[in-house]
Amino acid sequence: MKLSKVGDLVLLQSDPWKQSIFQLSEGTEIQTHKGTIRHDDLIGKAWGSIVSSHLGSDFLLLQPSLRDILLHLPRQSQIIFPKDLGYILLRLSIGLGSRVVEAGTGSGALTTAMAWYVGEKGHVHTYDRREDMVNLARKNLTRFGLEDRVTIHHQDLSEGLKQTDLDAAFLDLPMPEEYLGILRNSLSNGAIFGAILPTTNQVSQLLPALKQHGFDSIEIAEILLRFYKPEAQRLRPVDRMVAHTGYLIFARAIVR
Amino acid sequence: MKLSKVGDLVLLQSDPWKQSIFQLSEGTEIQTHKGTIRHDDLIGKAWGSIVSSHLGSDFLLLQPSLRDILLHLPRQSQIIFPKDLGYILLRLSIGLGSRVVEAGTGSGALTTAMAWYVGEKGHVHTYDRREDMVNLARKNLTRFGLEDRVTIHHQDLSEGLKQTDLDAAFLDLPMPEEYLGILRNSLSNGAIFGAILPTTNQVSQLLPALKQHGFDSIEIAEILLRFYKPEAQRLRPVDRMVAHTGYLIFARAIVR
Amino acid sequence: MKLSKVGDLVLLQSDPWKQSIFQLSEGTEIQTHKGTIRHDDLIGKAWGSIVSSHLGSDFLLLQPSLRDILLHLPRQSQIIFPKDLGYILLRLSIGLGSRVVEAGTGSGALTTAMAWYVGEKGHVHTYDRREDMVNLARKNLTRFGLEDRVTIHHQDLSEGLKQTDLDAAFLDLPMPEEYLGILRNSLSNGAIFGAILPTTNQVSQLLPALKQHGFDSIEIAEILLRFYKPEAQRLRPVDRMVAHTGYLIFARAIVR
Amino acid sequence: MKLSKVGDLVLLQSDPWKQSIFQLSEGTEIQTHKGTIRHDDLIGKAWGSIVSSHLGSDFLLLQPSLRDILLHLPRQSQIIFPKDLGYILLRLSIGLGSRVVEAGTGSGALTTAMAWYVGEKGHVHTYDRREDMVNLARKNLTRFGLEDRVTIHHQDLSEGLKQTDLDAAFLDLPMPEEYLGILRNSLSNGAIFGAILPTTNQVSQLLPALKQHGFDSIEIAEILLRFYKPEAQRLRPVDRMVAHTGYLIFARAIVR
Repeated sequence: MKLSKVGDLVLLQSDPWKQSIFQLSEGTEIQTHKGTIRHDDLIGKAWGSIVSSHLGSDFLLLQPSLRDILLHLPRQSQIIFPKDLGYILLRLSIGLGSRVVEAGTGSGALTTAMAWYVGEKGHVHTYDRREDMVNLARKNLTRFGLEDRVTIHHQDLSEGLKQTDLDAAFLDLPMPEEYLGILRNSLSNGAIFGAILPTTNQVSQLLPALKQHGFDSIEIAEILLRFYKPEAQRLRPVDRMVAHTGYLIFARAIVR
Repeated sequence: MKLSKVGDLVLLQSDPWKQSIFQLSEGTEIQTHKGTIRHDDLIGKAWGSIVSSHLGSDFLLLQPSLRDILLHLPRQSQIIFPKDLGYILLRLSIGLGSRVVEAGTGSGALTTAMAWYVGEKGHVHTYDRREDMVNLARKNLTRFGLEDRVTIHHQDLSEGLKQTDLDAAFLDLPMPEEYLGILRNSLSNGAIFGAILPTTNQVSQLLPALKQHGFDSIEIAEILLRFYKPEAQRLRPVDRMVAHTGYLIFARAIVR
Repeated sequence: MKLSKVGDLVLLQSDPWKQSIFQLSEGTEIQTHKGTIRHDDLIGKAWGSIVSSHLGSDFLLLQPSLRDILLHLPRQSQIIFPKDLGYILLRLSIGLGSRVVEAGTGSGALTTAMAWYVGEKGHVHTYDRREDMVNLARKNLTRFGLEDRVTIHHQDLSEGLKQTDLDAAFLDLPMPEEYLGILRNSLSNGAIFGAILPTTNQVSQLLPALKQHGFDSIEIAEILLRFYKPEAQRLRPVDRMVAHTGYLIFARAIVR
Repeated sequence: MKLSKVGDLVLLQSDPWKQSIFQLSEGTEIQTHKGTIRHDDLIGKAWGSIVSSHLGSDFLLLQPSLRDILLHLPRQSQIIFPKDLGYILLRLSIGLGSRVVEAGTGSGALTTAMAWYVGEKGHVHTYDRREDMVNLARKNLTRFGLEDRVTIHHQDLSEGLKQTDLDAAFLDLPMPEEYLGILRNSLSNGAIFGAILPTTNQVSQLLPALKQHGFDSIEIAEILLRFYKPEAQRLRPVDRMVAHTGYLIFARAIVR
């Protein structure tokens, strides 16, 4: 049976919408809105255990899943939501050994997910011109032991890429069309391009630029995720939901 | 530059909605609704090339992405759609080294995706009582070189599981509540459970059974994916979309 | 040109999401979060005028539309949202001369809308066992001068209906199946039945009861409405939306 | 009890998705995919009756609701769907006595619905430059006895409107921004403007023109309607749905 130990990342939750993620260390305490819990009372516990705060409130002790980690990533920018992330990874065909480029890095949520899936033989190159973002992403990647799979480039993508024959690219930038020329030269023929854009105007601007720079087989999609209240006798959707995160655009690099 | 070669799996498309996936072999031809193409004319071509049929129609030659492969999997049953698949993989935290159980196998789409992501050190155990499904899934997995990462069990899950300490489980079966007792014993504490169910009645039946068998932190979600026509000056959603595939249910195995 | 006058119902808004509805009377003031406005400064103004508070903030003076009235109805219960209301009225074929029954009355939003559309020759019978609801609905109807078109019955529908040959019925009650027998007798052959229910379990319970009590041609629908930010160069949906109000069920009374 | 009679408009359906609407006349027959039915067998029947074809198939005899009529309107152009229609009518505050302008007329679905709701004291002015549309709309309106409430103008809206002080306007035209100047002069202060547009680019073009021509309090919305299969023990959405009809834009005419 697996037990929690010092240094483990843990997820502690009172209900599915109230979660904390932190690292176990001896002699420390965590404060919640429902009372204090000592780390020493969590160390050596079976995952999935119910633990109590000093006020007697129950908490569930779990290993955070990839989704939990991404949702709770320390951040200074909007992150890509799990509903979009899962589809992006599948659509970009990110897998063992993939060599991928991403910009901007932001808080590193997509970087972390990509690094998780490319494995030890793959690699992620991520670009951001903001130093605070680069530092935050590095800290987040190190926390999950994924720093060896990622090269963080503190530069604007427009200054050029040295990598070639990359398998996939993802741009989370306001004007992706400005980088398509540079990007195409770094991608292998047939490579998969992806982008996320919040407004319809940005999508309209990206489309002709894609054709012009040797990308085709274009797909535009948006994903809506709706949660339901988990009550067997009163099953119904929750009252409110996220109405929009962004439009997802995908294309393939073709030979001209 | 990477070129296509004999034995490669290729994706040939006239437009994004008309695709064929097949393996390259010398001396063979492929018939399309827009004319015939000789495999010999495709072998040695750069990925992303435009090739012509004997009628002069253009086709794009691509390496199939994971999504393409899953969408075009030879099937005898409804497969899980990419919109759901990406979220399921993320939500189950499937990654390198994951040990996972799945039932039923069906045509093996989720099996293939899971095998892709668990890597060489992970493993997928998949159960189906139908021999035709088991055979089809085996064929599909072998086609993609993933057979070593999967054990296909030709048996009903109710006959019992020998595995223990599994990290995650996914059930695509009409009555998942019947297998929760058996399943819980095979899962490690804190493991992640998932299921897909087409009707609200099935969800209502699963919920109390989850609580009863030691699962908690329940999430129910449905995902809607809407495509847009890729026309910059006339940007708008397509006319029709998939209205429903299934409700996704996730939970964590807790210590009782 | 139409000008506002004492006694008129007015809508005053600083932006589309911050609206007040009130009746003009001399010597009165209205307090807003952006300063005070004297009714005397509003009386005799052209509709559509921009008026200023004592703090210099701009407000738009409008005649409230039916939607505005319904959204701002003084209420003690959840009202039916405009997205559902418009479809309900069309689906029930409410028009000039329609004779309709409704229960429960609640705050009277649907009652008001129905009374608006049945005209002077039509009539709405509405039932509620709660006295506070009956009083509130009466107050709301009187405010809009629609009280002559409505009979408010302070009784539970289960005690029986005296009306016959009604054209349409709408139930906004937790267990509509309990009233179908009584209701069927009051409806003309071919009349249209409608209901709104928040949970899937309630829908499942209503369906067989409809068949059993002589209703057929059943439709179940749910309506999602998503707003967009009105910014021409940054067009995109708003961030959050209502995920659920209720399932709408419609049927026709058949001859058995 | 109300019985069908010669000249009545009837709705005959085998299931909710297979409907015919026609006028009863002696000595006539209707052919369906499930056999022939003689009008003489329908005349004098109670509404809501089950009738049989010569092949023994059952049909339900109903008075068509407004929604049925609109859905089955003889058409030469895309009509506005009921999901949008209900909201448009409510949002434009169309009611007894409303004086409304609409362009283009198209097949007259919205014209019919508006004429239905404005009553005998209201009036609808509808404009279309296409003669075939004007003739079809006139035929449709006459069929429902609503022709007295509508003036059909066979001209392009750009040639000018003679009406003044109108309460509401609705444009279903490719470039509504071109008519806003002319339209504003015909609308009373505070009047409500509405439009439906299929593409995001059209919405982006309309927005600044609205501000420029004295419209404010802008709302943009889209409505999704999803049907469910009416099976109590297997309740679930249908497989496919309409993904898009158009974006709805509303605004109020202000005093400048």
